[in-house]
Amino acid sequence: MASSTRFATSLRRISFGPRTSQRVQRCRPIIQVRWTTSASTEPHQPDAKGNLGGNAAPAKTIKFTSETYPELQRNSKFAKLTQEHVEFFQNLLGSESAVLDGLTKDASEDIEPFNSDWMRKYRGHAKLVLKPQSTEEVSKILKYCNDNLLAVVPQGGNTGLVGGSVPVFDEIVINLQKMNQIRSFDEVSGVLVADAGVILEVADNFLAEKNYIFPLDLGAKGSCHIGGNVSTNAGGLRLLRYGSLHGNVLGVEAVLPDGTIVDDLSKLRKNNTGYDLKHLFIGGEGTIGIITAISILTPQRSPAVNVAYFGLESYEHVQKAYRAAKEQLSEILSAFELMDGRTQKIVNKVKGQKMPLEGDYPFYCLIETSGSNTDHDSEKLQTFLENVMEKEIVQDGVLAQDQTQIQELWSCREGITECLGHWGGVYKYDLSIPIANMYDIVNDVRDRLTEAGLLGDDDSFPVVDVVGYGHMGDSNVHLNIPVRKMDKAVEKKLEPYIYQWVQKQNGSISAEHGLGLAKKAYIGYSRNDTMVKLMKQIKNLYDPNGIMNPYKYI
Amino acid sequence: MASSTRFATSLRRISFGPRTSQRVQRCRPIIQVRWTTSASTEPHQPDAKGNLGGNAAPAKTIKFTSETYPELQRNSKFAKLTQEHVEFFQNLLGSESAVLDGLTKDASEDIEPFNSDWMRKYRGHAKLVLKPQSTEEVSKILKYCNDNLLAVVPQGGNTGLVGGSVPVFDEIVINLQKMNQIRSFDEVSGVLVADAGVILEVADNFLAEKNYIFPLDLGAKGSCHIGGNVSTNAGGLRLLRYGSLHGNVLGVEAVLPDGTIVDDLSKLRKNNTGYDLKHLFIGGEGTIGIITAISILTPQRSPAVNVAYFGLESYEHVQKAYRAAKEQLSEILSAFELMDGRTQKIVNKVKGQKMPLEGDYPFYCLIETSGSNTDHDSEKLQTFLENVMEKEIVQDGVLAQDQTQIQELWSCREGITECLGHWGGVYKYDLSIPIANMYDIVNDVRDRLTEAGLLGDDDSFPVVDVVGYGHMGDSNVHLNIPVRKMDKAVEKKLEPYIYQWVQKQNGSISAEHGLGLAKKAYIGYSRNDTMVKLMKQIKNLYDPNGIMNPYKYI
Repeated sequence: MASSTRFATSLRRISFGPRTSQRVQRCRPIIQVRWTTSASTEPHQPDAKGNLGGNAAPAKTIKFTSETYPELQRNSKFAKLTQEHVEFFQNLLGSESAVLDGLTKDASEDIEPFNSDWMRKYRGHAKLVLKPQSTEEVSKILKYCNDNLLAVVPQGGNTGLVGGSVPVFDEIVINLQKMNQIRSFDEVSGVLVADAGVILEVADNFLAEKNYIFPLDLGAKGSCHIGGNVSTNAGGLRLLRYGSLHGNVLGVEAVLPDGTIVDDLSKLRKNNTGYDLKHLFIGGEGTIGIITAISILTPQRSPAVNVAYFGLESYEHVQKAYRAAKEQLSEILSAFELMDGRTQKIVNKVKGQKMPLEGDYPFYCLIETSGSNTDHDSEKLQTFLENVMEKEIVQDGVLAQDQTQIQELWSCREGITECLGHWGGVYKYDLSIPIANMYDIVNDVRDRLTEAGLLGDDDSFPVVDVVGYGHMGDSNVHLNIPVRKMDKAVEKKLEPYIYQWVQKQNGSISAEHGLGLAKKAYIGYSRNDTMVKLMKQIKNLYDPNGIMNPYKYI
Repeated sequence: MASSTRFATSLRRISFGPRTSQRVQRCRPIIQVRWTTSASTEPHQPDAKGNLGGNAAPAKTIKFTSETYPELQRNSKFAKLTQEHVEFFQNLLGSESAVLDGLTKDASEDIEPFNSDWMRKYRGHAKLVLKPQSTEEVSKILKYCNDNLLAVVPQGGNTGLVGGSVPVFDEIVINLQKMNQIRSFDEVSGVLVADAGVILEVADNFLAEKNYIFPLDLGAKGSCHIGGNVSTNAGGLRLLRYGSLHGNVLGVEAVLPDGTIVDDLSKLRKNNTGYDLKHLFIGGEGTIGIITAISILTPQRSPAVNVAYFGLESYEHVQKAYRAAKEQLSEILSAFELMDGRTQKIVNKVKGQKMPLEGDYPFYCLIETSGSNTDHDSEKLQTFLENVMEKEIVQDGVLAQDQTQIQELWSCREGITECLGHWGGVYKYDLSIPIANMYDIVNDVRDRLTEAGLLGDDDSFPVVDVVGYGHMGDSNVHLNIPVRKMDKAVEKKLEPYIYQWVQKQNGSISAEHGLGLAKKAYIGYSRNDTMVKLMKQIKNLYDPNGIMNPYKYI
């Protein structure tokens, strides 16, 4: 951070004490702020090359998933790829859109990037990648695969965190990157209809020109596809303000395994004519069909954005601050992010970045407002600041004065993921827990590892620290355990303990990252047997042959 | 309206012309405004007695549905009620909660009100009404009914408009009125968990004390149950601001026909662990199970509310005004209601109520803002007014100065339903149509009836007028045809013409009222064959015996 010195001096510190209210600084107008790709919801951070070919060479060094999980066996009912199959697909799509491993001289067409994920944790054995250009092509592909018992993996930008978008064995990859057209946009209603393969940032840039915003934002926006976002019910940075995709997606077009095209691409906010089946595809992770297009309601873009950063003396105080922010910032509150003191010390230590506040606090939070009127928003924020300071809910704070400072404050939150990896590895858990008890799990896990003699300052201890941060507004905590080395003894202390802890709180073991391969075995901790049984019913109803994204989800 | 004279003189007229901006009036602060039960989204207006016994005596004069629809035949596979069945239910629930027709001396326990709807259009032949007090009782009831092939009708406040909540033949009514407890409320997260039988207004009053608001409001709030609201995916007045129930409902508890209790009562905003099955119950109209409790995210209540009323010279101008309101009022816009000039003339003529504006305009709109800061909201509204006046988007307008005036302006919108019934009958259509073409259907139908010689000023014509109004912000128009008498010749000109028209626009034949019995036959105009087939699959999966709310939905 080149600006670390300037950062500390130029940020307006909010004054504290009885005479506070007169001395609170009014923030300068900030116009047309938009997060760049560096803004990320933890830990959605692919390597941001924006295309799948980016990590082609190193992909071959990633361990195969089938080796990491030797208990997984290829389902023998699936057919193996034959020359006849390949010919069918090449006749249908052309050889440039039906890419067979090793059969092309163009290295950029190496299919390895389609076989492995950006975290380098999962790698499959696919030999064939298909890149359909129309819904009809997707339909013909799936019908053929279903008839011939060829397993498939639907793939968007391949930016997932749970291994859901890459093959395990020799499943055929169906990548939607060539279905990337915006189909329509209604400037009065704000309804966007677009192909599944449109990159999120492309969609958002398109909308920015119309003064609208995509109601979803996440770190991988430069690579991820909107179809993948809907398939995984992505959460991200704008959920507190704009709500979930279940509320914003108005329609989907999808293809079922038998080739049936589900045309449910409604542009209507209201349509009470029967079961709303699109919700099965939202978050369905490509296990019952492939989403080929979506229709989504997009909100107006906010011209005014403000960001404040606070130090607080307890989690109780963070809860009070959140309640006050909801009450007083109300319709303009767009983010309320929690970071414990340990994460901020780590960012400071690893990056050498001077922290926005002097002194140590056990908790910090970042509050963002987005509204249509800069002066009004600043005034609301000021009133809020006076209130939380007078009531001693927050102990210290700063307010960004311009776009650079906004990004600098966000970097205290966004930099955490990268810095935690400094010592070697990180055990990461993405949890939803009712807000009152949300931080308790961090303390409990820290105590547990300390008592077990696994956590300490010198290199003889595997565990460096146990930290928590996340989207307070969404009741979503990222429990992270940075370690000097991955260690079976540590793992045994973490699992199933953490999952059991979350289960007791009726929480979620995967708040926004989905199940994929990584969480498949643990669904029972967040869903009861009845729910799992009902889900399997749905899977069997739509995909009786089980060809869609096998070995994953449920 | 006793206040009609005062109304006209005390409302601040917004001045027009080049010097407008200086002369726009600032509205006075309005604090803690909340809609009363008289505020209604058309035409959700039950008789507001708040209990089902209210219309007990007249119910017996309503024509049986089986006579109105002679083509409907009782499904002979369903068992007829026997003494043994009755004993089972009375042993389970007690005789006061298993009420058999004619077997009670207390007239208020007459079951006729459970057999017929508030519009007096539908009446069934049920002999038994069950009022379970717990989810376990609902489970035992349904299991027994399923095992014995006894058909049932789930019923909440019985305020629906499409005959969905009353029996057709001798289905057993399962009314949720005794499951009426608020289970929990989290003051930090705003998550409310409550029994299905809680009355909407009770829930909203409970939340008001906590400074929260139920994210749904409609005219029947004094009678309707929140479980019924979720079962029918009710839209109502707050949808523009807070979105649909699919976005706000976090979890449901429901009982399947075989007695399985689906415990999906999550309090989490984020939980990406498998298919989100609760959405099948939202808008499922009790055809695959009975919702017994819901968990819902509630927003902060807005202390400041402003209302303006405009005259506009064309539907093009209304669209421009809507676009400007979205851009400039943005986060505080909470309603944008459309009324054509004909509706306002009718309100004027029937009620003798002086209209807020002098002069005739072909279109009027009512704009409401709700926010956390009165001054800010007034200023935003003022800027918006200057803008739409300077650009001549609106031709004239007034701004309410206090709570009374707010209600008076709303009465210009809310009074339409009642006034349209003045001549005898009304053909009513609740349509979603893409906003650009939304009003065209009103003109087309008016032309069609005029050309057919059915519309005219004197009593020899059956049709009085063709009018349109509705929720512009939701792309939801209420097409209403007030008539001097219901007439087969008129009906033949209306249907299937209107449904075909809506189908061509990819609209919805039932925006917010659902299918029930009334729209069952017309689903094909809003859903293609594939969707209907997939819906039937879901129905068969969950309710293979078809005992849940038969003869309706799909």
